[in-house]
Amino acid sequence: MTHEPSRMDKIVSLCKRRGFIFQGSDMYGGLAGTWDFGPLGVALKNNIKRLWWERFVIRRMDMFGVESAILMNPKVWEASGHVATFTDPLIDCKKCKGRFRADAIDSTKECPNCGAHDFTHARPFNMMFKTHAGPVEDSGSCVYLRPETAQGMFTNFKNVIDAFHPKLPFGLVQIGKAFRNEITPGNFIFRSREFEQMEIEYFVRESEWEKHFDIWRGEMRDWMTAVGITAFYEREVSGDALAHYSKRTVDIDYEFPFGREELYGIAYRTDFDLKNHAEYSKIDLSYVEDDGSKYTPHVIEPTFGVERTVLALLVSAYEEEKLEKETRTVLKFKPCIAPVTVAVFPLVANKEGIVGKAKEIYDSMRIHFVVQFDDIGNVGKRYRRQDEIGTPWCVTVDYQTLEDGTVTIRDLDTMKQERVIATELIANIKERLKG
Amino acid sequence: MTHEPSRMDKIVSLCKRRGFIFQGSDMYGGLAGTWDFGPLGVALKNNIKRLWWERFVIRRMDMFGVESAILMNPKVWEASGHVATFTDPLIDCKKCKGRFRADAIDSTKECPNCGAHDFTHARPFNMMFKTHAGPVEDSGSCVYLRPETAQGMFTNFKNVIDAFHPKLPFGLVQIGKAFRNEITPGNFIFRSREFEQMEIEYFVRESEWEKHFDIWRGEMRDWMTAVGITAFYEREVSGDALAHYSKRTVDIDYEFPFGREELYGIAYRTDFDLKNHAEYSKIDLSYVEDDGSKYTPHVIEPTFGVERTVLALLVSAYEEEKLEKETRTVLKFKPCIAPVTVAVFPLVANKEGIVGKAKEIYDSMRIHFVVQFDDIGNVGKRYRRQDEIGTPWCVTVDYQTLEDGTVTIRDLDTMKQERVIATELIANIKERLKG
Repeated sequence: MTHEPSRMDKIVSLCKRRGFIFQGSDMYGGLAGTWDFGPLGVALKNNIKRLWWERFVIRRMDMFGVESAILMNPKVWEASGHVATFTDPLIDCKKCKGRFRADAIDSTKECPNCGAHDFTHARPFNMMFKTHAGPVEDSGSCVYLRPETAQGMFTNFKNVIDAFHPKLPFGLVQIGKAFRNEITPGNFIFRSREFEQMEIEYFVRESEWEKHFDIWRGEMRDWMTAVGITAFYEREVSGDALAHYSKRTVDIDYEFPFGREELYGIAYRTDFDLKNHAEYSKIDLSYVEDDGSKYTPHVIEPTFGVERTVLALLVSAYEEEKLEKETRTVLKFKPCIAPVTVAVFPLVANKEGIVGKAKEIYDSMRIHFVVQFDDIGNVGKRYRRQDEIGTPWCVTVDYQTLEDGTVTIRDLDTMKQERVIATELIANIKERLKG
Repeated sequence: MTHEPSRMDKIVSLCKRRGFIFQGSDMYGGLAGTWDFGPLGVALKNNIKRLWWERFVIRRMDMFGVESAILMNPKVWEASGHVATFTDPLIDCKKCKGRFRADAIDSTKECPNCGAHDFTHARPFNMMFKTHAGPVEDSGSCVYLRPETAQGMFTNFKNVIDAFHPKLPFGLVQIGKAFRNEITPGNFIFRSREFEQMEIEYFVRESEWEKHFDIWRGEMRDWMTAVGITAFYEREVSGDALAHYSKRTVDIDYEFPFGREELYGIAYRTDFDLKNHAEYSKIDLSYVEDDGSKYTPHVIEPTFGVERTVLALLVSAYEEEKLEKETRTVLKFKPCIAPVTVAVFPLVANKEGIVGKAKEIYDSMRIHFVVQFDDIGNVGKRYRRQDEIGTPWCVTVDYQTLEDGTVTIRDLDTMKQERVIATELIANIKERLKG
């Protein structure tokens, strides 16, 4: 596979047109690196987050959900190393004052803005957004927007131990926003300044880190299979690319239309974080075994980006299929993550019996599924509209319904229609959702 | 009811001890006005948000969910009036440089910090958190953390119209974080600098605003009844207290232990916001009727704070009941919002048959409910632990279970135990959840 900008353009355009994703603040010319999610985008994100939370928190005995604040005491970021090292190297053009990532332009050549060739040396630029809390803007009131959710779990390690007394291994889990002042955000929602993470800090005995690293790699693969992310590649991170806190990291790359890029990652962070926080805060963060022995647990960290999941799902699902007379654009989402589960159509919009029956079916299903009602245009057009947003099943109420109480149900993938008894629809769709 | 600080202290203490809510960054001495949610707090919040979203988005045809970015183009806040008027009056003590809300201290008296009496005049202090996006910190890169989610719905009004062509009346709905640099955050999670809102902007014809205002007041009451918020009071906001954009506002106050304070609000915002955004952005934000007539819709805005909902639920649920030999502390949550739905106990922790059966029941229920397993201490103590976190039902596996396959199920409110057949437990609890 090579770069496919046109495929990407089509996905971006579909997302805007059908109400998945809009540029942030777009009516004011946008704000670089921010995105707004429309009704279908929110539904997709919510499905992802709900499935992930059910799988990794609710259905397990060893996982503890937390939600820490985005604004944290700046000492957290001193202890974590972010104040000192969470930087990109920047160079300035002395002529036009343009500022660039040193690794993104060739400073032996002319400046891209003004053509001059007069650059400063590279200087580190901290990527954390800075603000001030309280009425006085001085260094004492400076706080950062968190650049990752991870630290909020380390700082709550003791709180969770004290309240729940978990036995090793156990995990803290968080879904939440993080902010990075990226110099060059881009590739749609792939690299943005505001994004959402789903992160796990899994605490283990040092001797068992390799076992749990492998188990979590498997869990991540299973997750991707479950939601329908295809074409991913695991890549061992080594040498300079390995973060200072990590003894082993595997990135999971995905074949995006703009190239193979990082989707998820799993890192063995050793006891780096807990040790540092214990040192900076003077609070004991050790784990006590039943036999009284004390030590600092080690950490396996699987990280999942929400927006990158959304993008990988869109890319995985997007297809253009030649039909007899037209091309259908279809998002072949797995039913569990599709924003709309069922669409209900009255075959004609002007026959009271048919419309009434369709509304009745629609109402009965809304308690169980996300359902859309559509009576605009001919049924063929309505199928194409549901194809584009990835609705697994379309139910049509027609003349025969009035006679024998059956409706047609059309499958997104196969486009095949079956007649089923209307009163059995809910059970029928629940069965399909399982499989 | 009068102020009850001791009751509040008990709730705060329970929240920390049992893992609902911790001070933000507490291992570093905290960060004023921020809070971290522990496992049970996250579960409670998630239940609130899920029920609210199901009720006001998924189960309705007229509502459209959005999730706009926290970082927005600063022009949004110029158009909304926040840059000019979202301020608190502050005065400085010239001696100690202490800064205070002018309406919170008496400047005719001595300064609370230093005893001097030498204040500046009151000056407006903008409560929006300010940061810089991009590599250069100048006025052109200044952005604000949103102080409310509302504007993100107005700025997506046209996007939703273009993608979904909704008919009036319809609503945009958002759940998300907002930030206010409160000078004096306080009363636990009641007034914090980082908080979450659940907001609706419901667009109506001007002639129908009163009707929809009343309908939404009813919806808000129904919501509170559904989740178990008792003791609320509706209060007409008038005179100076009425926001400049509103022609009518009703606040819904709740009897908190620290006094009767605002829980929710509903405002008729007229066409103020859409008109202003149209003017500032030069983008037409009118609605077009089928007959071609064009106008700017008016807005009814019901607003719900997530943290205030959490606090009102905790206060509503908290009770201390004298039993024969002890006092039980109990959170009488409605089952639909309780963080844990069922607890499973083996009567004794050392009899394999009983423990095995309890684990089996626990596993079978985890697919359907949030379940906790507890085998520590005697069953009486386990009941008290589940009382404190508001678990509606405790299932105990005992010797009789091994003989006849029945278990006991204990109700939180009545403390009554019933024997039910273990294989019918799931259906039994599903039935109880309905009622």
